[in-house]
Amino acid sequence: MSSQERSVQKFSGISPAEFFYRNRQMAGFGNPTQAVYSTVRELIENGLDACEDAGKAPEIRIKIVDEDSDNVTVTVKDNGTGLPYDEVAQAFGRILYGSKYERRQKRGTFGLGVTMAILYGQITTDSPVLICTRFGEGLGRAYRLLIDIEKNAPILLSETTKRQHSLGTSVSICFKGDLKRAQERVLEYLRLTTVGTPNARIIFNIDDEIQGCIGPWTSEAPKTSIPVKPHPRAVDVELIQRLLNECESTTIRDFLVTSFQQLGTRTASKLLAFMNIDPKTPLDVLTRQDISRLCQGMRHYDGFCSPDSKCLSPIGEASFTAGVRSTFNTSFLSYGRQGVFEWQGNPVILEGVLAVGDSFSVSDTPTLYRMANRVPLLYDASEDIFTKVVRQTSWRRYGFSKPQPAALFLNVSSTRIPYRATGKQSLAHIMEIERETSLLLKVLGRFLSKKVSSGGAAARNVKKRREYSELIGIVAKYGSELADFDSPPPTEHIVQRLFEVSEDE
Amino acid sequence: MSSQERSVQKFSGISPAEFFYRNRQMAGFGNPTQAVYSTVRELIENGLDACEDAGKAPEIRIKIVDEDSDNVTVTVKDNGTGLPYDEVAQAFGRILYGSKYERRQKRGTFGLGVTMAILYGQITTDSPVLICTRFGEGLGRAYRLLIDIEKNAPILLSETTKRQHSLGTSVSICFKGDLKRAQERVLEYLRLTTVGTPNARIIFNIDDEIQGCIGPWTSEAPKTSIPVKPHPRAVDVELIQRLLNECESTTIRDFLVTSFQQLGTRTASKLLAFMNIDPKTPLDVLTRQDISRLCQGMRHYDGFCSPDSKCLSPIGEASFTAGVRSTFNTSFLSYGRQGVFEWQGNPVILEGVLAVGDSFSVSDTPTLYRMANRVPLLYDASEDIFTKVVRQTSWRRYGFSKPQPAALFLNVSSTRIPYRATGKQSLAHIMEIERETSLLLKVLGRFLSKKVSSGGAAARNVKKRREYSELIGIVAKYGSELADFDSPPPTEHIVQRLFEVSEDE
Repeated sequence: MSSQERSVQKFSGISPAEFFYRNRQMAGFGNPTQAVYSTVRELIENGLDACEDAGKAPEIRIKIVDEDSDNVTVTVKDNGTGLPYDEVAQAFGRILYGSKYERRQKRGTFGLGVTMAILYGQITTDSPVLICTRFGEGLGRAYRLLIDIEKNAPILLSETTKRQHSLGTSVSICFKGDLKRAQERVLEYLRLTTVGTPNARIIFNIDDEIQGCIGPWTSEAPKTSIPVKPHPRAVDVELIQRLLNECESTTIRDFLVTSFQQLGTRTASKLLAFMNIDPKTPLDVLTRQDISRLCQGMRHYDGFCSPDSKCLSPIGEASFTAGVRSTFNTSFLSYGRQGVFEWQGNPVILEGVLAVGDSFSVSDTPTLYRMANRVPLLYDASEDIFTKVVRQTSWRRYGFSKPQPAALFLNVSSTRIPYRATGKQSLAHIMEIERETSLLLKVLGRFLSKKVSSGGAAARNVKKRREYSELIGIVAKYGSELADFDSPPPTEHIVQRLFEVSEDE
Repeated sequence: MSSQERSVQKFSGISPAEFFYRNRQMAGFGNPTQAVYSTVRELIENGLDACEDAGKAPEIRIKIVDEDSDNVTVTVKDNGTGLPYDEVAQAFGRILYGSKYERRQKRGTFGLGVTMAILYGQITTDSPVLICTRFGEGLGRAYRLLIDIEKNAPILLSETTKRQHSLGTSVSICFKGDLKRAQERVLEYLRLTTVGTPNARIIFNIDDEIQGCIGPWTSEAPKTSIPVKPHPRAVDVELIQRLLNECESTTIRDFLVTSFQQLGTRTASKLLAFMNIDPKTPLDVLTRQDISRLCQGMRHYDGFCSPDSKCLSPIGEASFTAGVRSTFNTSFLSYGRQGVFEWQGNPVILEGVLAVGDSFSVSDTPTLYRMANRVPLLYDASEDIFTKVVRQTSWRRYGFSKPQPAALFLNVSSTRIPYRATGKQSLAHIMEIERETSLLLKVLGRFLSKKVSSGGAAARNVKKRREYSELIGIVAKYGSELADFDSPPPTEHIVQRLFEVSEDE
């Protein structure tokens, strides 16, 4: 081919919608089974986020209908506060658009998932998405829209007023799917969703055949996450440049103090001294080199506190154990937590529950259930960092000298979950997360090994307790006869108190 | 939170560059080790594509320099025909922009990889990318550029003329990387690259310590891939709509014949009869419903031929075995191929080489080396469809009744590789690929089991050959004495011919 011919080569750009249209398997829409699961998941996550933003206990209704020729329709309705009407078209009809770009924990992060489900529905069944929402006073509105894939923009087919009794949003998507094969996963997803969000009620109806309601297991709401300023160790040149553009300070010290968390005037002065920069340097004389130097300095400076965790919303001990206990038969539960720690300046909290009970299969290692920002992850386990750490842990030390019916539930909370792919199914190998997970498993393992080694003691205790019970009963009987009582007083609570101290839960 | 407060929630869009800036681990830039590997890989792939487009045997020079403070600079130079000067800025400074969107096999596919490496360099070291290219007559040009992440657009810092002796492009990126930890993988990647592209020469220099040259192992160029029209089973509503917009036909039959491969006038007539559509229907009366019906019909119609394979460029038996033989010590090699078959209308060819030799570790199953469009895949093996099929194959049946020092090389060629993630490291579970891989492994396995079961026979053959050799030698000696020759004639080629038929390679 001559250079002449090569010059004919066409160069062109594609929109992000076009990219995911061509590579839908990357966003979890590779085949009809996965499509059912991903659509359900994206809609439920959106619904839960909406309810939590509204400060309400989530009540999510999901209806799945399997029509002829494998057209599946999924409808999910939440009890949030609805969507601002002038944002509906963009929020649902444009990829990489949304309200999820603040620095705080949310389930959705990309402005990608639901739009991807709509796009998949459109290309497989040519059906528009139907969105009904009521926001504030008055009636609600209904929208039907498609996506212009080449332009990455919504095509609004209709917008009508529609009476809706309560606030909230319902979204209905029709697509080519294999409900029969996806059904088990979907049900498992719903069940595990209430482990991560135990104050939610999920009401489901699958093809009018399987119906039911899961949760709530607690009335306690999870801690609300609040947006924060970036941590100084999260900087790169790009971020500093952006913060400089937004900033109204005049000196570099003021800039640092107002733009970052964990950076008061004292720390800022120390940091600038460490980098040999005059704190009074005016911002408008900073060159690209200065910014680059500032960036390097902030990454290497040791004196910052851990990142603020108010932007996170972990499950919490009471709710997490309530969720597991309500969903599975358990005879033993232990909860542990690591963090706040950070990866690349992003705050992270790790929580875990190690449970033993009939519900779990008997094995050399506990069955792993993974969650990220309280969302269950059901696919792609084998490449996940959690899986790796569970494999590396020597469970024999922790009560697994013989196989146990045990399960391990892990939840990572962060403002930025390091997903391996846009399908959001597994966690990348981040050193800090690996280290803390390993520590968490040791803590949980020790609880279990204590429990197992006290197994023999427990059996002895039961026997002892029976004897005490009998003897104190006799004492009570004779005592009450001596005192002329009609019947001996109850003694069971006395025995109880005697044994309370040494008992496991 | 009241609905009033919720309305304050900020909605906004982000550019694709911003998306990958925030989620760089998804594109293979999650940590400094991976970053080295991904940068090398993306630059080498781009270089190889450029050479093959130019119709030249690839000669790729790669230089990696590890500067102080973990700044690594990777420079890759190809001998392609250079880049049109007015496309350089966009091609390197804009994500999802490129020349790779035709329907034919190429290594790069997304217009994402190299731009992502540049973006990563920029945010970690604040250095611009340096591109030198010569396209056609005259001097070459040098460019320094950064990416405006928020806008997804290039920021051109400088463009100068620069003397360059030969055509081609060199790209130099400086970024935060861990060369020491990545080095092994990089070398393995280079070695395996010449297995998939055995006519390439790769000249490498790592930090002036490790230098060398790999390949070429053959002078035979791989088959050039040629763009094709879409296969009818690849349609969705979106594709038909686009083809209609481009099309100059007036009737639906003409449209089908001119827009698709494997659709001549006869097949088009049959297809339309199957769908009960008049072949003379003018295009301008088609409604959205008609298009949707057409789409359904085309997907379900059985009478299409397999997709055209001229858009593919597999390695080929001679080159593939030459590549493996030159890179590893092998005592046995077998090659097999499946396809052309299709997934979602995309043509696929699968090739495999099963090899036995000292280079490979002894195991119950062969060590797997994966390739896609001739590019080695070194990460994320455990979720890959190839790995799954290798695990499911009962190797005991195929000569693995005792462990063997064997390896399996698989290469999938397609116009669309179903990568699981933008990092392009593993293949999604596509049913058709799974089925054909399984068939291919059976074919290769049978070759091996034949070889192993003839192991005893081979030993006997060696002994027999030695005896024949001796006896024919004696015959020749006495014969030559009788004929008064100075010395007996050579007999080795006679023995060779006697045994040729029954010999394994």
